[in-house]
Amino acid sequence: MSERKKINIGLMGLGVIGSGVARVLIGKADAIAQQVGCPVILKRAVDCDISKKKSSQIPARIFTADPYQLLHDPEIDIVIEVIGGDTDALEYMKEALSRGKHVVTANKEAISKHGPELLSLAADHKVGIRHEASVGGGIPIISPFKQDLLANKVSAIRAIINGTTNYIVTRMATENADFATVLKQAQELGYAEANPANDIEGVDAVYKLAILATLAFRTAIYPEDIYREGISRLGSRDFRYAKELGYAIKLLAIAKEENHYVQVRVHPALIPEDQLLAKVDGVFNAIEVEGDLTGKVIFYGRGAGPQPTSSAIVADVIQIAQNIKLGLPPKPQPQPSRIKNLTTTSQIVTRYYMRLTIADRPNVLAQIAKVLGDNLISIASAIQKEADESAQTAEIVLMTHLAQESAVQQAIREIEALPVVKEIGNLIRVED
Amino acid sequence: MSERKKINIGLMGLGVIGSGVARVLIGKADAIAQQVGCPVILKRAVDCDISKKKSSQIPARIFTADPYQLLHDPEIDIVIEVIGGDTDALEYMKEALSRGKHVVTANKEAISKHGPELLSLAADHKVGIRHEASVGGGIPIISPFKQDLLANKVSAIRAIINGTTNYIVTRMATENADFATVLKQAQELGYAEANPANDIEGVDAVYKLAILATLAFRTAIYPEDIYREGISRLGSRDFRYAKELGYAIKLLAIAKEENHYVQVRVHPALIPEDQLLAKVDGVFNAIEVEGDLTGKVIFYGRGAGPQPTSSAIVADVIQIAQNIKLGLPPKPQPQPSRIKNLTTTSQIVTRYYMRLTIADRPNVLAQIAKVLGDNLISIASAIQKEADESAQTAEIVLMTHLAQESAVQQAIREIEALPVVKEIGNLIRVED
Repeated sequence: MSERKKINIGLMGLGVIGSGVARVLIGKADAIAQQVGCPVILKRAVDCDISKKKSSQIPARIFTADPYQLLHDPEIDIVIEVIGGDTDALEYMKEALSRGKHVVTANKEAISKHGPELLSLAADHKVGIRHEASVGGGIPIISPFKQDLLANKVSAIRAIINGTTNYIVTRMATENADFATVLKQAQELGYAEANPANDIEGVDAVYKLAILATLAFRTAIYPEDIYREGISRLGSRDFRYAKELGYAIKLLAIAKEENHYVQVRVHPALIPEDQLLAKVDGVFNAIEVEGDLTGKVIFYGRGAGPQPTSSAIVADVIQIAQNIKLGLPPKPQPQPSRIKNLTTTSQIVTRYYMRLTIADRPNVLAQIAKVLGDNLISIASAIQKEADESAQTAEIVLMTHLAQESAVQQAIREIEALPVVKEIGNLIRVED
Repeated sequence: MSERKKINIGLMGLGVIGSGVARVLIGKADAIAQQVGCPVILKRAVDCDISKKKSSQIPARIFTADPYQLLHDPEIDIVIEVIGGDTDALEYMKEALSRGKHVVTANKEAISKHGPELLSLAADHKVGIRHEASVGGGIPIISPFKQDLLANKVSAIRAIINGTTNYIVTRMATENADFATVLKQAQELGYAEANPANDIEGVDAVYKLAILATLAFRTAIYPEDIYREGISRLGSRDFRYAKELGYAIKLLAIAKEENHYVQVRVHPALIPEDQLLAKVDGVFNAIEVEGDLTGKVIFYGRGAGPQPTSSAIVADVIQIAQNIKLGLPPKPQPQPSRIKNLTTTSQIVTRYYMRLTIADRPNVLAQIAKVLGDNLISIASAIQKEADESAQTAEIVLMTHLAQESAVQQAIREIEALPVVKEIGNLIRVED
């Protein structure tokens, strides 16, 4: 085997992330070369939008608008894919792997939907595919699952893995502001996209959770397996009541395994405010992993942005480049297959927070309590609040003990049908 | 190269940690074999204390009291060293490496004092030495520095890396209890050793910080390079005052690099209570790393105990075993040498908390303020507390703006000499 004199990189996508990666590869070229043992050259960068040639500030001579000029270049060793999505980007990654190029990607959508296929293609062509940047930005989390936590049987993941929604819920909690107002400000500040559905409806968190759960439980979990509920129904009063009860509200990504059954869900949740996860504010992310040996371990940091994401991508590049330089093959990745069962949403057992608008008259709580009792749900605490005298209504907040989701949904239907109940304000699961 | 049918482990040390490691290797043998691709056998376990043959619950046939029966066994591939200390344990590790055996160790003292020598010996014999368990127990931290954070220039580490002292300061803070009382209870509960000096004087934290700083700054840092101050001088009143000022007090391990100058120190520090590190309580550890790309990343979890430590040790074993099974050489480790300068303690610039007992009469604060001003130290806030009428003394707490350590030490000497000052109660650095 001839000694490698340099390693060539092809970068696909020159948006905010791609430009950031290019800056790091160029700006830190000396430090990277030192770690790898030879220069790591950004040889080619592609974006179908020709304006990126200028705006991304890469050297003009390496720019191309033709992806295949990069993919068909036999000198390119590693392809960095930061286009995103599961259409073109997926096709390019497959093409790169098929041509014996290693792939580094931040693409949570493609990895969560097509991870096993990509891993298998990489194995067939004896190359590696790495995606540390797909979850948690600059927070090391993929690699710990593949290495440091190997000796553990993981029983649970609880994660705040979407910075946009965490920014919004943090501001709703601290400023008593409503969802629409905070979302608008988040958009103005660039923390939320013009079309924010992917974040606020929990889709982004679902992709990331699918990736984490697949690694943690060593069974293939796909986005469609995951129960999903976004944050748009949260009212500022929910944050007030939660605080009064000693809780924060976060959009949580939860994955648990019990007796070979895996449950995976993304939804707003009340978290006791003395837990560290409750204190993860603003655009920060945190992933809590519970292993049988480690107990709870938490990884915390910036989950997005060009610099943290570049940190993860370039670390992946350096590690692949080190192996190329040493003539070592990529480490074989286990091919996840579906070997465990999924718990359906109706089987979830947890505690619940319910906010109801009721007629302000005697015995209403008794009627509600009876419905809950008939469904084997017991009340842990109840607070009645803020009677609206003109409307002759009051608001009541209930916290239940552990109850099964199906029973709670049945009870909610029955409660909604009670003449004394004006509205089900919200139903939020509690993560103790 | 012939296909490996099994990989043999030798375990040195059958104390609490060693027994825990044996339990995991035996109890999880199937899961480990699946990850490695062949059985990983605990072939031999050694402890010079023959009573451990029984108390450790290992199969009696694998026990020996003779280290060399293990070290000279050509069939043993990986030696796990959990004896600790830098005498026998160090010798055994060298012997193992010299005989071409891979080493996995939790030994922070030996690694911090002799890391470069051990790495070099391992490289000479084409074997690996791994020590994830040497810092942070079950928290992945060594491996992130070697891999996931590679693209970063690390500017700072701030860490709570000694569970015993964090347990003590947490209880002092929450119960308004004094140091001696809490230490005694911690000893009764097994959270502090009969001879607690290693923990409470910060020696253990110094070993761990030396390891982290060496990795982070890619320059050799030894325990004797690190300024050290333990927690025994902390009074319960310091926690009260700190809280009033909006701070927690923790034993912090701090390493910073600025302009190729590295400062490394372990001492109690005031941390603003809204920072996550201030909320790390009890026996938990947390390591905050600040990189130029990631920003602040925090790793949190249980830093000690047989199970978390086994998690790290067995993960190291699995990774070495995977490489052996695949016929891959261990990844080369950079040999740290001293390439950066150390900042002396007197050059540290930070903020300070001072607690003084003074004569309860007019103009005392003015005299103190003058000394501070003469030394170019300005006061950020001052509170005067709890006049003791019988003794005609009062207590005063000062928070300074940024000041240089040498100036502060000079000022303290001058303040102590003032007739109106009865006692310097405490001087604690602030980490904002």
